[in-house]
Amino acid sequence: MPERPRILGQRELARTRLFRVEGVELAFANGEVRQYEYLKGDHFRAVAVVPLFDNGDVMLVREYAAGRHDYELGLPKGRVEEGESYEAGANRELQEEIGYGARDLRVIKMLSLSPAYMSHRTAIVLARDLHPAHLPGDEPEAIETLRWPLARLEELLEREDFSEARSIAALYLVRDWVLGERA
Amino acid sequence: MPERPRILGQRELARTRLFRVEGVELAFANGEVRQYEYLKGDHFRAVAVVPLFDNGDVMLVREYAAGRHDYELGLPKGRVEEGESYEAGANRELQEEIGYGARDLRVIKMLSLSPAYMSHRTAIVLARDLHPAHLPGDEPEAIETLRWPLARLEELLEREDFSEARSIAALYLVRDWVLGERA
Repeated sequence: MPERPRILGQRELARTRLFRVEGVELAFANGEVRQYEYLKGDHFRAVAVVPLFDNGDVMLVREYAAGRHDYELGLPKGRVEEGESYEAGANRELQEEIGYGARDLRVIKMLSLSPAYMSHRTAIVLARDLHPAHLPGDEPEAIETLRWPLARLEELLEREDFSEARSIAALYLVRDWVLGERA
Repeated sequence: MPERPRILGQRELARTRLFRVEGVELAFANGEVRQYEYLKGDHFRAVAVVPLFDNGDVMLVREYAAGRHDYELGLPKGRVEEGESYEAGANRELQEEIGYGARDLRVIKMLSLSPAYMSHRTAIVLARDLHPAHLPGDEPEAIETLRWPLARLEELLEREDFSEARSIAALYLVRDWVLGERA
């Protein structure tokens, strides 16, 4: 197990409303010195929620994704507010995005996204015991929803508009989780 | 299927050696106007490679990840060079990072990462028919490798240092792919 490199220097290279780029100079255990850049995302916490109905369907959302300039299918997602737990944030996002609340919420995995370049992590929350409940959100247009049987995950993976690494990882994790409970 | 929002304006908000933040003003079909920010990553292509041995083991790498300031377990990954195919880039990264080349390489899925905020996509490449082969890389220190049986994926998922959404999605996808071939 190698020792973590020593931080020789660190500074903010750029900051916009949403992004902070941090530069860091590191000395590795072998003496090698390198400059790195990464996105600092510790200032917010995020959830991606898998709303699972009793019949084995999950509820997906289809939303405009600015990074791709296209509509993408994925999980309800959002930032957790200050003082809010992951579970409470997940329950709020569900009510804003799909019009359901959940009585059974649990974090099943913390996912990183390109940890070489981003400090950010997303809590994957499994939401069950769903009931209709609605909260107003801040989306620019009504969000389309799509119910999809988790048992037909393979077909979903063939769709080009379903490509997000976190959504794919989360649905597989939930499928394993549910199979594990039944075993 | 909603119409994509119209781009009213677009400009670069920040640029560092690695990151470009783009700002865009959009008018949605319902007339709503919003400002978005995202990371522009179209200027490079990336691969994450699943090196699969004949006995069902995969080879993972354990590398320093600056975004998390810690060592993380994951797949061999890297940027594809100009004029290089995804398959050739994957084969080069394998030889640099794990000391193997592959005779059977195929892109099994294009993954996006937070498409609301990033334009970037990663090609997941399944690499088989492996043979020892080494190319010098530009890593700051020797990369640790770890052979792991794909059949024991669940145990891997319990490790805190194995958290990357792309790696998790890729290993599940490969497991399904291989099971599909045998069926």
